[in-house]
Amino acid sequence: MQNRKIRVALIGQGFMGRAHSNAFAQVKHFYDVPFDIERAVICARDRSRLEATAATWGWREIETDWRAVVSRKDIDLVDVAVPNALHAPISIAAAEAGKIVLCEKPLAVSAEEGARIVEAARGVPNMVWFNYRRAPAVVFARRLIDEGRIGRVFHYRASYLQQSGNDPTRPPSWKTQRALAGSGVIGDLLSHVVDTAMYLNGPIREVTALTETFAPGRDVDDAAIALVRFANGSVGSLEASRYGVGCRNRNTFEIQGERGMIRFNLENLNHLEFYDACEPRNVQGARSILVTGPDQPYAGVFWKPGHTIGYEHTFIIALGDFLSALAKGEEYHPSFADAQRVQTVLEAIEKSAQSGQWLPALH
Amino acid sequence: MQNRKIRVALIGQGFMGRAHSNAFAQVKHFYDVPFDIERAVICARDRSRLEATAATWGWREIETDWRAVVSRKDIDLVDVAVPNALHAPISIAAAEAGKIVLCEKPLAVSAEEGARIVEAARGVPNMVWFNYRRAPAVVFARRLIDEGRIGRVFHYRASYLQQSGNDPTRPPSWKTQRALAGSGVIGDLLSHVVDTAMYLNGPIREVTALTETFAPGRDVDDAAIALVRFANGSVGSLEASRYGVGCRNRNTFEIQGERGMIRFNLENLNHLEFYDACEPRNVQGARSILVTGPDQPYAGVFWKPGHTIGYEHTFIIALGDFLSALAKGEEYHPSFADAQRVQTVLEAIEKSAQSGQWLPALH
Amino acid sequence: MQNRKIRVALIGQGFMGRAHSNAFAQVKHFYDVPFDIERAVICARDRSRLEATAATWGWREIETDWRAVVSRKDIDLVDVAVPNALHAPISIAAAEAGKIVLCEKPLAVSAEEGARIVEAARGVPNMVWFNYRRAPAVVFARRLIDEGRIGRVFHYRASYLQQSGNDPTRPPSWKTQRALAGSGVIGDLLSHVVDTAMYLNGPIREVTALTETFAPGRDVDDAAIALVRFANGSVGSLEASRYGVGCRNRNTFEIQGERGMIRFNLENLNHLEFYDACEPRNVQGARSILVTGPDQPYAGVFWKPGHTIGYEHTFIIALGDFLSALAKGEEYHPSFADAQRVQTVLEAIEKSAQSGQWLPALH
Amino acid sequence: MQNRKIRVALIGQGFMGRAHSNAFAQVKHFYDVPFDIERAVICARDRSRLEATAATWGWREIETDWRAVVSRKDIDLVDVAVPNALHAPISIAAAEAGKIVLCEKPLAVSAEEGARIVEAARGVPNMVWFNYRRAPAVVFARRLIDEGRIGRVFHYRASYLQQSGNDPTRPPSWKTQRALAGSGVIGDLLSHVVDTAMYLNGPIREVTALTETFAPGRDVDDAAIALVRFANGSVGSLEASRYGVGCRNRNTFEIQGERGMIRFNLENLNHLEFYDACEPRNVQGARSILVTGPDQPYAGVFWKPGHTIGYEHTFIIALGDFLSALAKGEEYHPSFADAQRVQTVLEAIEKSAQSGQWLPALH
Repeated sequence: MQNRKIRVALIGQGFMGRAHSNAFAQVKHFYDVPFDIERAVICARDRSRLEATAATWGWREIETDWRAVVSRKDIDLVDVAVPNALHAPISIAAAEAGKIVLCEKPLAVSAEEGARIVEAARGVPNMVWFNYRRAPAVVFARRLIDEGRIGRVFHYRASYLQQSGNDPTRPPSWKTQRALAGSGVIGDLLSHVVDTAMYLNGPIREVTALTETFAPGRDVDDAAIALVRFANGSVGSLEASRYGVGCRNRNTFEIQGERGMIRFNLENLNHLEFYDACEPRNVQGARSILVTGPDQPYAGVFWKPGHTIGYEHTFIIALGDFLSALAKGEEYHPSFADAQRVQTVLEAIEKSAQSGQWLPALH
Repeated sequence: MQNRKIRVALIGQGFMGRAHSNAFAQVKHFYDVPFDIERAVICARDRSRLEATAATWGWREIETDWRAVVSRKDIDLVDVAVPNALHAPISIAAAEAGKIVLCEKPLAVSAEEGARIVEAARGVPNMVWFNYRRAPAVVFARRLIDEGRIGRVFHYRASYLQQSGNDPTRPPSWKTQRALAGSGVIGDLLSHVVDTAMYLNGPIREVTALTETFAPGRDVDDAAIALVRFANGSVGSLEASRYGVGCRNRNTFEIQGERGMIRFNLENLNHLEFYDACEPRNVQGARSILVTGPDQPYAGVFWKPGHTIGYEHTFIIALGDFLSALAKGEEYHPSFADAQRVQTVLEAIEKSAQSGQWLPALH
Repeated sequence: MQNRKIRVALIGQGFMGRAHSNAFAQVKHFYDVPFDIERAVICARDRSRLEATAATWGWREIETDWRAVVSRKDIDLVDVAVPNALHAPISIAAAEAGKIVLCEKPLAVSAEEGARIVEAARGVPNMVWFNYRRAPAVVFARRLIDEGRIGRVFHYRASYLQQSGNDPTRPPSWKTQRALAGSGVIGDLLSHVVDTAMYLNGPIREVTALTETFAPGRDVDDAAIALVRFANGSVGSLEASRYGVGCRNRNTFEIQGERGMIRFNLENLNHLEFYDACEPRNVQGARSILVTGPDQPYAGVFWKPGHTIGYEHTFIIALGDFLSALAKGEEYHPSFADAQRVQTVLEAIEKSAQSGQWLPALH
Repeated sequence: MQNRKIRVALIGQGFMGRAHSNAFAQVKHFYDVPFDIERAVICARDRSRLEATAATWGWREIETDWRAVVSRKDIDLVDVAVPNALHAPISIAAAEAGKIVLCEKPLAVSAEEGARIVEAARGVPNMVWFNYRRAPAVVFARRLIDEGRIGRVFHYRASYLQQSGNDPTRPPSWKTQRALAGSGVIGDLLSHVVDTAMYLNGPIREVTALTETFAPGRDVDDAAIALVRFANGSVGSLEASRYGVGCRNRNTFEIQGERGMIRFNLENLNHLEFYDACEPRNVQGARSILVTGPDQPYAGVFWKPGHTIGYEHTFIIALGDFLSALAKGEEYHPSFADAQRVQTVLEAIEKSAQSGQWLPALH
């Protein structure tokens, strides 16, 4: 049987453009999906760098106007990897043109805008690149939870800490301008934290939060901390900061329930900590599990047990799982609708930080 | 020159009674202070166990009425190690009788009561047994901060997690009854967290918080989480729980500032983590310092560098430092007044959890 | 300027065949080298799997006779990824045919055979895939040593532990047959240990060793431990085992010198531990450095600081560095000659384990 | 029933003198043994410090001639805490005088001398202060082994690393003079390693070893490494060094067997790592167990679960266990005879390092 061809247009050539390009180049080396993935077009405004990017990553054509790309008949899939403020116009246009649409996180710069994207994409396959939820350790955490190894949950705490804000040598970026990014760490880092939290621990009922801007003259949040009450009765805190000195990319969570505890740190991507509170008391202890082993998620996909994967593989897995779902006609998660639920929580956090009140966060 | 004699009366024979007894027995083995410490009287209601306790720990006399003890002329120091609700009456009576007064934490079951204790003890040497602030690693953290190794602080986060609440085999205790304890984890565990936070990072300006009771039928908080704004402009979270599954006694803090990061975990009492953000970038990393080494706090007090101390030594240090201050006529910290500042924050946290509002926490 | 074309023939489709295929597919995405790498031919005996392998990894042609491949005029580079006993015949034939030759480790099944390979390859560019020496953390360790951060070395200890031997569900493999593998862990795992040791700490002067076979009926070593004296005056131990229960792929080393200590564990590929003994004593401690950061080896090659790489990247780096050296007309290390020095040490270890004597290990 | 009185004479006031004094002062606070321990006499040559030492630690009398002490009728127990070369004369004299004899490790400076001590002490209760074998984590390791949680052992590796040799500010000590110490790290550190190894893994059949002296002009070994074959068929390495830069007091072991793995590091005295290879493969991982918990060795002796102990408690446990055995008329381990088995191994290691041969190490 012949594979269906998927001609991909990638909008964006920044850091995410590279990560997505790599995923499109690599996915078929590890996932046996019935599609031929053609890297058809890469589109970005800076033409001077575009040819080199296309040559390096094997994109056949280059383009500088995303509208032209989206309206092309010979494109099956549009991948949106541009600053947040452009997610809505491009995703909506692509969806309205009937394309499969993949969009970087966060889905949008507001819940209202997110709702419009979801509405537009109702009829097309879609996904948001919340790649960390697809780290094997995180999927394994979810599996342990589903198997009842944690039981009734008491606490969920998570944080995503980087130290870029404290580095005066760092060049300015669209990520610290409200006009382009919509928010600071809330959209950039806390969105991952909220997505993973909802994936692992379900809906968030209400929040109260603070935000802080440490850098002078900046119009976005450098740090955000929220207290949360989940629908399942557990309580916790969610935090993100660009002033988390000592942490290059520390994205962590910890879940404590009546039957056990799970802990993860992205800086140790291939490990998951698990404490089994059902064992005899004298041998209880947090064990560090190397999550590249037998009988674990994605065990056969990459290398042998004990051979680690890296950052880029979370994108390959997201894409591979999306294509696998597509082949079966199933919906992929996180879809735009899932990401919109994240957006609702992020907006409640931002508004609570302004008002000082607890706010409902349910969709 | 002859040593001054200090005749001690200990009120209480529970777990804290043992820890204090050990401190009184051991302090002169490690601290060269000009006092003879006489374990004169131990007082507790359960006479059946009292003789054995006195014999084990070398208390000369036993007594079952604390009022009788406090009024004895031949007692110089009263040490209060009883349930929280009794801290105020005994401490006030002892102070009014002119005794040196040492009191277990928390100082009181309310800020109002704490204020009365402070008032009564204005003229006598006093201390509150916030022993963890005296762990060598914590004192070393303070020294690094004082030396400017952290610089402007951005974040302070701390938590004290135990799992006792999740253990159905545990016998009931006064600690989970509001009438005796005043509160749940707020007084028991969060008081340590707040004391250490204020010791290391200064006054707390305002808080918003949640509390949760997981155990059915209990009238105190099993968990409490607060968002805090410190007077120095840093933000953070403080948490305590008896449902922190996987944690036997995990009392941690993390401070992040423009020049570095410090992290501590009581389960690794002899270690402190330090990240120096002023080093060349390629060798920056969180280092684990064994805090029993040369040129560190309390280096010569106990054993040789590399030889660790345990839980009980935090009490010995507290007592030894108190006696050293006493010998010099200096005030010891945390004094009752310091502990009352903690009490004010705890009360703001408890009230905020009820009202859902941010509340001022300054004394 | 036009890139030179390099037409590659890969011999082998096992686990190493996949890892090498991935390196050939990925190298140009991350390394800007003036070559077009054409995956021309993949050759293996099992034709039934070969077409699928070729399709997955983009090899244009398939072949089942390595002799036919090696004699083809249109092949520029032969990559040998087959059982150890075949390394010599294929590498020698390829070298004699004037090809660039890359060979999996260990170079050979004996020092005598290795010498013949080196001799045959004297005129052609060559490399041995000791990929772990190219892990960024290991290269960074070497840089710290070269900068004098360790000083005079006292101790070097290393081990490579896997637990596959203890797993009764594991299918048999050529790796446990002397006829195909030449040895057990000595060639498979200890070869990496010795290569990294010599890369970081220089030549090994003499050895005494033991080997052990735990599995019944096996004719190769399951474990090997050597005491070593290095030419620089340091002493240490080198170990490998397939019965290292609890270790999936724990390849570690530790170097201690008068100015500091370095420690590495492959299971935490992206971290290196460094203890600076020249700092003030009170802040000395082993720091954990995330080796994906600024000013570190390979910093700009893959992703941003803090974003980790995985097992496969060590192969991409080896190939990328080889091609970079080729472009500049420089010799790459480890070359066949370097790998032959490893072979000499391995042979001394094996013989010492038989005789019980210290043996010289210098080339 | 009245307690039997044990009048103790301590010979030595150095670091071990302090550690033993503390044990005698503390043992009855934690162990309910039917003895009254009287700190009767402390004996040392340096009279100038002796009075202060006696006053601090509560020794009733002081003495400068050990012969006079040993011959006193009113002494029941002689504790030998002096340089190694004096262990034999004092222990033998004390035993011949019918005293209970406790002796610091190593038992002697040679196996021949050790044999004479054992012979002399045949009729009196005796113990050697191999205190680390009594760390709760080590006793717990032994219990796990006895319960079959490790199964057939493949590997045992251990090392005791300090960095004192690399510290030029350190004053000279009797420990680096052969005339007083008998050896360097072999007697001082490797003796602990061998004692723990034999306690956990049984007799050592044969050894080959190297020793090295890094410090100029020193007549003892600064480092020693041995390959060992145990009687149970397992193989491993044992190492000690004073040039283990980065390690203040790192005494570690690791045992790997068909059913699991155990790992310990004295710098984390209260933790034991355990890997259960019998669990489902996907949740296998090394767990870190806080060994102050319920159902663990010495659980009720000191504080509550989760409250850690320190270095000094290993001495208290050794003494408490010795007295418990004495009360029951049982022999304590390690006895002089046990320590002599260690001595035999140490001597084989030292001789092997000279001859370069494998040597038998069995008693």
